[in-house]
Amino acid sequence: MKVKYGSVTVPQITLQSGEILEDVVQVYAMYGEPNPNRDNVIVVCHALTGSHRLAGGKIEGQPDPWWDTIVGDGQALDTKKYCILCFNNITSPYGSISPLSINPNTGKKFAMDFPIISIRDVAVAQKKALEQIGFNKINTVIGPSLGAMIATEMALSFPDDVEKCVLIAAPDRLYPQAIAFNSVQRQTITNDPEWKDGNYEGTGPVNGLAAARMLAMITYRSEQSFSDRYMRRTDGESQTKWASKFQVEDYLLYHGQELVRRFDANCYLYLTKMMDLHDIGVGRGGIEKAWSNFRGKKLLAVGISSDMLFPNWQVEEAVRLASLSGVNAKYEEIESENGHDSFLIDFDQLDDYIRSFLW
Amino acid sequence: MKVKYGSVTVPQITLQSGEILEDVVQVYAMYGEPNPNRDNVIVVCHALTGSHRLAGGKIEGQPDPWWDTIVGDGQALDTKKYCILCFNNITSPYGSISPLSINPNTGKKFAMDFPIISIRDVAVAQKKALEQIGFNKINTVIGPSLGAMIATEMALSFPDDVEKCVLIAAPDRLYPQAIAFNSVQRQTITNDPEWKDGNYEGTGPVNGLAAARMLAMITYRSEQSFSDRYMRRTDGESQTKWASKFQVEDYLLYHGQELVRRFDANCYLYLTKMMDLHDIGVGRGGIEKAWSNFRGKKLLAVGISSDMLFPNWQVEEAVRLASLSGVNAKYEEIESENGHDSFLIDFDQLDDYIRSFLW
Repeated sequence: MKVKYGSVTVPQITLQSGEILEDVVQVYAMYGEPNPNRDNVIVVCHALTGSHRLAGGKIEGQPDPWWDTIVGDGQALDTKKYCILCFNNITSPYGSISPLSINPNTGKKFAMDFPIISIRDVAVAQKKALEQIGFNKINTVIGPSLGAMIATEMALSFPDDVEKCVLIAAPDRLYPQAIAFNSVQRQTITNDPEWKDGNYEGTGPVNGLAAARMLAMITYRSEQSFSDRYMRRTDGESQTKWASKFQVEDYLLYHGQELVRRFDANCYLYLTKMMDLHDIGVGRGGIEKAWSNFRGKKLLAVGISSDMLFPNWQVEEAVRLASLSGVNAKYEEIESENGHDSFLIDFDQLDDYIRSFLW
Repeated sequence: MKVKYGSVTVPQITLQSGEILEDVVQVYAMYGEPNPNRDNVIVVCHALTGSHRLAGGKIEGQPDPWWDTIVGDGQALDTKKYCILCFNNITSPYGSISPLSINPNTGKKFAMDFPIISIRDVAVAQKKALEQIGFNKINTVIGPSLGAMIATEMALSFPDDVEKCVLIAAPDRLYPQAIAFNSVQRQTITNDPEWKDGNYEGTGPVNGLAAARMLAMITYRSEQSFSDRYMRRTDGESQTKWASKFQVEDYLLYHGQELVRRFDANCYLYLTKMMDLHDIGVGRGGIEKAWSNFRGKKLLAVGISSDMLFPNWQVEEAVRLASLSGVNAKYEEIESENGHDSFLIDFDQLDDYIRSFLW
């Protein structure tokens, strides 16, 4: 499998807010090669704290690949046949423009002066970047979670250039419970005095970001998976001392610390806000009209049976509304107790669904 | 309806941890009057942030009553017939011994030197207090949520003196997801620098406590109730500004602020830990053996169809295991989209179930 890392700078994009973002740097990874017609491109959009590194194993100093089992020679996203591209989403801290970038107007980090970016803005930025690299047509756009929202927006904003869309574990628009979870996560970050209205230097509000991640991890798993692994299990200390913990607490603490080592708090604020704003119907006359942009094209939406963040019925709803609008839409479901994170765990089922769809 | 407020001090209790707690002050409210045999007592146990004030309308300077529609003359808990007693749970900040009390060994507040109190300890403290007041027999012990856990422990610890038990929306033992939610709530409090290892003066870690309550409120409602009330509704500001909020966020912020005006952060830490430790099987040879203590007596367990904190199947499980152990156990369910807090909202259904059971 050929792997290439690159970077492209889109001179400017007009954001959904009306603001203009300039020098829109986007880093990317490319797996496999373009065919002579340059029409074998599959764009993968990554989730909240993911990155453009899909595959290639662990490499020191690089973010861990998150779809090694899906992307590669002979895999479901087959690099012998397709040219697989994944951009680091703008607003994410892995190299693309974000609150960590220098604001040309001040010479300092954007921090909280970064404009609020929508899912649609990310899709527009990636589409323009693709064109600059020399890809006008997209065979398939695919993504899980926040990545599915970006994939959907790319399909609906550029239906003439996108043939197929695969969305995994995401709704057409965020429901209030998901917004509520995101809101509390932002609260734990902005409550941290080390946040300093976003003007921290160095590690910043690590306690607040870790607490946010701890909460997020609950929503990424399921009650059943926690029960299977941790039912009443303790770290062995007497439970009537404050030093003692249940194992599920240690699990959350571990994941909180794991994230603060590799992520940025301001980026986290912007990315969760971006997610809250997701609503494909905005500016398009509603959800069904939005889907009618993609009429006659192919959509696969994959729900997860135990997803508490974006319950399977929200994904089914997307398929129902897309079908009503003339999209050739299909629903599949990952049967798993692993919750929202099943897209990072239950590769066998996902592999089948993607292969069948792309066949 | 006759109402009486009182206070009783149990000289000492030996806690489940082995520690001794002395001068165990417990305040209480009594609605209705004892009959000549003093065997018409119903003990109500309150939930996490509730109090002993069950009824009697709002009174300035007093905690709001939380079961005004259930307790009163002619109500399901009928004060013409029963003498209804509710203690402020030890560890709660409404007048009973708690981390806010003075530690006789230091002359200062206990704060985090307060011992870890278990649900069983609360039940023992209330039973001893009842005896001091002159009630040896309990007609019925009833409670919702944390109060249900206390009610269960009172029934299992003193089966000779308790005739009937009603538990609403609580499990036999906490499952890991509920522990996880509590753990993140404690983290937001202890992350707050104003917490000062518990040695705060005055208002203390209000930001941390408010964030904890915001998270808790998500678990007290349901996805459906949030969707019904708040679907994509905003405060009217442009959603691409940080100042803008979705209405569900304002709802959470409101409830965070409402709690910090009336609660104490250290008490919150101890009460959530108490909940995590709940496991009726501990020290009794397991859940079924524990229930066998109550063999031949009557249990009503009420689940809530949309409860995400303590899902209905956990309550059904309690009934199943109690039945296997010879308890005369019945399961009923509140059909509601209001989530865990249905016990404070869906009074009609609760009224029916309680009346039928006490008949």
